[in-house]
Amino acid sequence: MKLLKTFAPVAALAALPSMGLAQDAAAAPGFDEIGPYIMTTLLFCMAGFLVFFMAAGFAMLEGGLVRSKNVTMQMTKNIALFSIAAIMYWLIGFNLMYPGDFNGYVGSFFSPTVLDPVGVAAADAALDYASVGSDFFFQLVFVAATASIVSGAVAERIKLWPFLIFVVVLTGVMYPISGSWQWGGGWLSQLGFSDFAGSTVVHSVGGWAALAGCIVLGPRIGKYKDGKTTPMPGSNLALATLGTFILWLGWFGFNGGSQLAMGTVGDVSDVSRIFANTNMAAAAGSVAALVLTTIVYGKPDLTMVLNGALAGLVSITAEPLAPSLFMALITGAIGGVIVVFTVPMLDKFKIDDVVGAIPVHLIAGIWGTLAVAFYTGDWGAQITGIIAYGVFTFVASLVVWFILKAIVGIRVSEEDEIMGLDMAELGMEAYPEFSKG
Amino acid sequence: MKLLKTFAPVAALAALPSMGLAQDAAAAPGFDEIGPYIMTTLLFCMAGFLVFFMAAGFAMLEGGLVRSKNVTMQMTKNIALFSIAAIMYWLIGFNLMYPGDFNGYVGSFFSPTVLDPVGVAAADAALDYASVGSDFFFQLVFVAATASIVSGAVAERIKLWPFLIFVVVLTGVMYPISGSWQWGGGWLSQLGFSDFAGSTVVHSVGGWAALAGCIVLGPRIGKYKDGKTTPMPGSNLALATLGTFILWLGWFGFNGGSQLAMGTVGDVSDVSRIFANTNMAAAAGSVAALVLTTIVYGKPDLTMVLNGALAGLVSITAEPLAPSLFMALITGAIGGVIVVFTVPMLDKFKIDDVVGAIPVHLIAGIWGTLAVAFYTGDWGAQITGIIAYGVFTFVASLVVWFILKAIVGIRVSEEDEIMGLDMAELGMEAYPEFSKG
Amino acid sequence: MKLLKTFAPVAALAALPSMGLAQDAAAAPGFDEIGPYIMTTLLFCMAGFLVFFMAAGFAMLEGGLVRSKNVTMQMTKNIALFSIAAIMYWLIGFNLMYPGDFNGYVGSFFSPTVLDPVGVAAADAALDYASVGSDFFFQLVFVAATASIVSGAVAERIKLWPFLIFVVVLTGVMYPISGSWQWGGGWLSQLGFSDFAGSTVVHSVGGWAALAGCIVLGPRIGKYKDGKTTPMPGSNLALATLGTFILWLGWFGFNGGSQLAMGTVGDVSDVSRIFANTNMAAAAGSVAALVLTTIVYGKPDLTMVLNGALAGLVSITAEPLAPSLFMALITGAIGGVIVVFTVPMLDKFKIDDVVGAIPVHLIAGIWGTLAVAFYTGDWGAQITGIIAYGVFTFVASLVVWFILKAIVGIRVSEEDEIMGLDMAELGMEAYPEFSKG
Repeated sequence: MKLLKTFAPVAALAALPSMGLAQDAAAAPGFDEIGPYIMTTLLFCMAGFLVFFMAAGFAMLEGGLVRSKNVTMQMTKNIALFSIAAIMYWLIGFNLMYPGDFNGYVGSFFSPTVLDPVGVAAADAALDYASVGSDFFFQLVFVAATASIVSGAVAERIKLWPFLIFVVVLTGVMYPISGSWQWGGGWLSQLGFSDFAGSTVVHSVGGWAALAGCIVLGPRIGKYKDGKTTPMPGSNLALATLGTFILWLGWFGFNGGSQLAMGTVGDVSDVSRIFANTNMAAAAGSVAALVLTTIVYGKPDLTMVLNGALAGLVSITAEPLAPSLFMALITGAIGGVIVVFTVPMLDKFKIDDVVGAIPVHLIAGIWGTLAVAFYTGDWGAQITGIIAYGVFTFVASLVVWFILKAIVGIRVSEEDEIMGLDMAELGMEAYPEFSKG
Repeated sequence: MKLLKTFAPVAALAALPSMGLAQDAAAAPGFDEIGPYIMTTLLFCMAGFLVFFMAAGFAMLEGGLVRSKNVTMQMTKNIALFSIAAIMYWLIGFNLMYPGDFNGYVGSFFSPTVLDPVGVAAADAALDYASVGSDFFFQLVFVAATASIVSGAVAERIKLWPFLIFVVVLTGVMYPISGSWQWGGGWLSQLGFSDFAGSTVVHSVGGWAALAGCIVLGPRIGKYKDGKTTPMPGSNLALATLGTFILWLGWFGFNGGSQLAMGTVGDVSDVSRIFANTNMAAAAGSVAALVLTTIVYGKPDLTMVLNGALAGLVSITAEPLAPSLFMALITGAIGGVIVVFTVPMLDKFKIDDVVGAIPVHLIAGIWGTLAVAFYTGDWGAQITGIIAYGVFTFVASLVVWFILKAIVGIRVSEEDEIMGLDMAELGMEAYPEFSKG
Repeated sequence: MKLLKTFAPVAALAALPSMGLAQDAAAAPGFDEIGPYIMTTLLFCMAGFLVFFMAAGFAMLEGGLVRSKNVTMQMTKNIALFSIAAIMYWLIGFNLMYPGDFNGYVGSFFSPTVLDPVGVAAADAALDYASVGSDFFFQLVFVAATASIVSGAVAERIKLWPFLIFVVVLTGVMYPISGSWQWGGGWLSQLGFSDFAGSTVVHSVGGWAALAGCIVLGPRIGKYKDGKTTPMPGSNLALATLGTFILWLGWFGFNGGSQLAMGTVGDVSDVSRIFANTNMAAAAGSVAALVLTTIVYGKPDLTMVLNGALAGLVSITAEPLAPSLFMALITGAIGGVIVVFTVPMLDKFKIDDVVGAIPVHLIAGIWGTLAVAFYTGDWGAQITGIIAYGVFTFVASLVVWFILKAIVGIRVSEEDEIMGLDMAELGMEAYPEFSKG
């Protein structure tokens, strides 16, 4: 609103194309030429703010599933990790991921993102795609999602700063390098690997990093004792449910925006097709977990239902466009089933994933990526991609976690863990007035 | 993001229209032909995700207004009902509602929704409307809203599974049949009944189903005792307020999207007109309830203010386009007044509506639907529609509730109700650490 | 959804332009002429609902930062202030702010907003701008933000009704008058003062009004005692974090929509550029506060991190378009630093700002407005604007607060303050079941 409403020069500028039509059509391109660019840029902005909001979704989900003595820490980590991701991806990540195939060229390594100039002319814009700003913003909120996945799994015992250093490496280097293999036009993309919106590139990568973290950290004190798993219920299931709904909402942007175009009949229809399929997979994952926990445990389990919906969403993310609504339902429902069976499995291996991030993002992500082969037929490429992302991310994460452990330590003291990270590390309770039962 | 940024074939495809212009304009329709389709499809996607988010709004509102011992159950019901609605509306509802007038033809009864093909060509798309996926998604989130209305009213004493079976019937059959009378081009539509975005078709229908449920269930233990009404305050008014704001947000999609078109000057202006009127009605309902509770009870009542805003929104939903801002204010304010007076009225009849869903959605919905006659002049059609929806939904709901009561029982045991549904039915507390006063 | 899907006359109408092309192109303007209007109107609707949602963000932030005995009151104030702002801005504000320069002409003083007619024809629409409804809606949600800023600062001791009367004056008269100086094309705009989306026009104005309120009210009982500041920790930091994320989300609309146009390559690119810069400033503010509180206090302070992000957002609001991503980072980071240093400074002056609204919105707002001069070079105009808004708003606010104090009193009794406003003024607790520690 730099300009007044009534005499707005910017608005006048906006009217130029039509005014100019009579005289020099070349200088003022019409909507047939600029319409797709405008629509796709808008798609990225809209999908981008939806995916941005997933940061709040993760924060609420995780804040609801940890015990109240660790809620302030979980909030701090989530807002900090998003902020760090935003800076690292600008500083290094974006141009590391999208020069095409990662080439290891050091010169291009450190190359902060530069936006289009203000009021870029049509002649200077990527009319066959979208503005740099919209593209950068849209990609940036994806890398933040990857980091959010890690924060939930390693909650309740990791120190703040080592975690944030891990986020720096993950979002600035690891995610962009492996991301370039596929979305940067690298070797996996050339091999025929297919991952539409990132079941593997985003979710499994987050899951592998989380798995490495959980292994290096070890389980929370008292979680596995005398061969038994002690439940440590979340402190606020209303918040966890809100977080799930926010993530579900954000996923329309996550998958829909990944169509990468909205300026033709086919593209906008595909975006809507993706919306419908994404919603269906989430619904199916939720219902599958509801029914299955009722059968297996005798009672429905809300946290499983929430994670079931999320697993349905992760499952459909590798291919939200091609399936019919029925196939989306099947894909999502299998995601929900996976969660119910793999959450206890992790406990058997004494891998303590506080919020169920590994079943939801890693295992369901693998399933979703595999399922793409039903449409492409190329099982080899899908399996190669899954393994490549797994090996790279898991090994690189292990290395980073071990280095952090060796140099600064990554786990709080036993005393601090029992007291809760909020008082120990931050000196601030999330719910100071609500006495603890 | 199946494709890389730099060599994107999809983006290349997006540029085709302009590239093709020189050669064969017929094969590549310009924006004058496809623009309205793109804009309307986008409208449905955008309005759709806003209305989707209302599911979270209902969950938070209801979760905040029930006692803490029933919050996990309320969360479970809300995510499950949305998921079931999504599946049932795909499986039966959408094609039952929109073949035109419901014809009872069994062959078309079970006909799951089929989306446009991937990358549908302009020649094969409904260029005068929008993509099937966007239309389906937009309609689907409406039916879920209807089911959400019921869940709040019957809270704190209904069993999970019978409630969900009711949702199956409501969203798969009842809502689509009665919806087809109006929006499917059926007899009420031909009669001249007018209900722009669903004061009756969505909100009153939810309200009637809720009323039937409340009557069959009976009030909560201790609610009405010795001729007195015992207040049972909600456990988390911050959450209830959040839910109200989310619903208000979603309503821009609910009413704005119901313009069903955004590709002309008139249509996009109308969408914005609807935004302004919808906002005004909510504001007026809220202020009316604030002032009125201060006058009547001596103190403002936040839950009434929240419900006043919602009643304002329901009131304007039947005609959010035609009114001036002043008429929108009046319409919404009367909605707010209705809530303040009908909440205690229901208590007189010992109808125990936990969250005030019946005053907000049924009574204000009737008011809003009636008020349309100020613009159409056809009071007969409005009254006929109100009665038709009322009789059909109330009777059908009563029948379903009674069948469920007879076969499986719909109410938890007295002991379970006192203990709270969370521990009794789910074995999981929403706030396990916050000791109860 | 007034019309059925299959035989939709509205949709048919939407198709008219293309149908009419062959015959009379003049009567049915093509997308080259109407496209910018459609896109800009859509921008206002979309940005408008994002900014609307900031009302929820403020409510959650403030509700999380006050003590639990004042949460119901904070919710009541926030939903009421938005509603009142909506009504007042329609009744007086909008036409007071946008006749061009405020002229004091009494005739135009009371002139409620009138929308475009239903289905306005292209010939009658402001094709070089956007629909009145979208413009009004977008401007209206801005004024509500100003009022929200005040409610946080004066929390926990102000009476409900005097506060709401202040909101009536602020949103109906004060904000529109001073707003007209700049965005109404008034003297500051002619002087060369620049404030793209309102670091000063919206945020500092809210901050000045809050400062006046805090001074007239005095600090909460026990806040400053024996030369020491007693911390009064917020009751729900999860809620405060949610509020911050919602505000961050809404800011994409706040700044992005202030481009005021989206129908050209340059405009839509600028909107996306603003998205990227806005996000960067928030991230930088958050990280700056995180690092700085760790250095200064030895421990990171979540409430400072949240306010740091918000201060980053306020700082970039005066010029979110011109900066590079790096300059956006610097601008936002300085905002974060400001918060960390000015929060304790206010305490020194015994100005009790409950949520930190003055550092975030006033001080960071001044910084952001000053920083514009790095791009415009006109330090004089920026400083003149800052002073003009400060003097006018602070003095006018002081006068209104003093009048309210003299006539009805603005502060609750000592007894009521200690008991909490919820029980004293509203008779309703926000968390009745959670026993207080």
